Amino acid sequence: VPYISPLLVPTATGRASSDGHRGRVAVVGLGPAGPQWLTPEAQAELASADDLVGYETYLARVPRRRGQRRHSSENQVEAERARHALELAAGGSRVAVVSSGDPGIFAMASAVLEALGEGNGQYAGLEVRVVPGLSAMQAAAARVGAPLGHDFCVVSLSDHLKPWEIVERRLRAACEADMVLTLYNPASSTRREQLARAIEVVSEQRAPSTPLVVARAVGSEAESVTVTTLEQLESDVVDMRTLLIIGSSTTRIVPGEPRLVYTPRRYPG
Amino acid sequence: VPYISPLLVPTATGRASSDGHRGRVAVVGLGPAGPQWLTPEAQAELASADDLVGYETYLARVPRRRGQRRHSSENQVEAERARHALELAAGGSRVAVVSSGDPGIFAMASAVLEALGEGNGQYAGLEVRVVPGLSAMQAAAARVGAPLGHDFCVVSLSDHLKPWEIVERRLRAACEADMVLTLYNPASSTRREQLARAIEVVSEQRAPSTPLVVARAVGSEAESVTVTTLEQLESDVVDMRTLLIIGSSTTRIVPGEPRLVYTPRRYPG
Repeated sequence: VPYISPLLVPTATGRASSDGHRGRVAVVGLGPAGPQWLTPEAQAELASADDLVGYETYLARVPRRRGQRRHSSENQVEAERARHALELAAGGSRVAVVSSGDPGIFAMASAVLEALGEGNGQYAGLEVRVVPGLSAMQAAAARVGAPLGHDFCVVSLSDHLKPWEIVERRLRAACEADMVLTLYNPASSTRREQLARAIEVVSEQRAPSTPLVVARAVGSEAESVTVTTLEQLESDVVDMRTLLIIGSSTTRIVPGEPRLVYTPRRYPG
Repeated sequence: VPYISPLLVPTATGRASSDGHRGRVAVVGLGPAGPQWLTPEAQAELASADDLVGYETYLARVPRRRGQRRHSSENQVEAERARHALELAAGGSRVAVVSSGDPGIFAMASAVLEALGEGNGQYAGLEVRVVPGLSAMQAAAARVGAPLGHDFCVVSLSDHLKPWEIVERRLRAACEADMVLTLYNPASSTRREQLARAIEVVSEQRAPSTPLVVARAVGSEAESVTVTTLEQLESDVVDMRTLLIIGSSTTRIVPGEPRLVYTPRRYPG
């Protein structure tokens, strides 16, 4: 139930809370696992929120503060969570929707904006902002060098919300134009077919020796980042917490240990 | 980070400095302008460096610290700067190469890795790490909502280091596969032709009403972020500090002020 101070009059742009501030929603990116990537902006936003809304695993990363309410939910109920956050804010609360990585990249920011758009003006005037965070691909890339140093594509392999045909079309397009390819959501415990098919599609156009980065749970205790090649990928290790970066024709591995990989700034021709 | 006591002799993997630590290079991302996006990891790395190396404009963003040496250089001498950093580290120094945004995305990390690779083993064993930062596209996207909420491509329009043909091929590929398109380095004071041509190429496949974000100097006092459309882009305002995000067929503008824009998580079909 949204808390509304009896002393303050509701306004058209959201009711004011007991602290006198207007309701608002901030979609806050925590960055990949670990506190080392949490920006000062995100930290301040989390500290000043009345209500935290998010997937329970991500909420668990935010230190508890007295008087701050928590609304945790299961994964994959993004639309519900987004509406809930908007409702709380419409009631005058200062709400932080907590997202891992960058909320703007395959995460909660789109879900909140969709709910806002579908609200048909019922949230008009409500302040909604996005607080960016480091995305998993950046942490993964940093661990091995600079595979994203030149033009690249970012594609989610999940066909939960889009037809598989569009995924394949995007993989082919990236290959035809020789762009580095970052794959989010390459697999889950039940969704294994897509990764095999994606590797097949990419292998039609890219050499077997193409560098491939397998990054799992970067920043967490379970972190594992490996530099391998397209033909040597062991797809069994790829799970929900993994992302892949597939090099372009110019991506190089620097000999030595640990293996570093980069895509040069220069493109031949 | 391996800490080596001052009692230890220099090793083949870099000499020990007066403080006793082994030489190393960290390529550090400051994020876009302003301190609100500087991560704790980047902050710690800058604080502990013996030498700071970077483009003068970016170095100016790092607070001065007694005893820390600064090596500033002009823009566009990335390769020289990278070699200089490796030399300092080979001499036992702890070096931070300072980069705006994410050093891994069109920035200094590739330049340092290239110099490392071209060193033919002369820097073998030297510790090189990349400290990621928020990239300008993330700050730009956050200001207007979530235009990067679905699959997207990131392309630099500069043909300084690659042939223009490859740029066009990538623009066409992104359009054919209906991916959101982020354009870095769309123009400079002397390089104006490329942007006009890019808009022409994209307009062959995308509707005139496609949402377009023009983001300039996000986070700085000169910040200006506008949501417009492909046909209404005023390309005169686009300069070296600007980046563009061109929507896909599914990208939507939320009615109201300020104009918010998002790409839904769902793709029809």
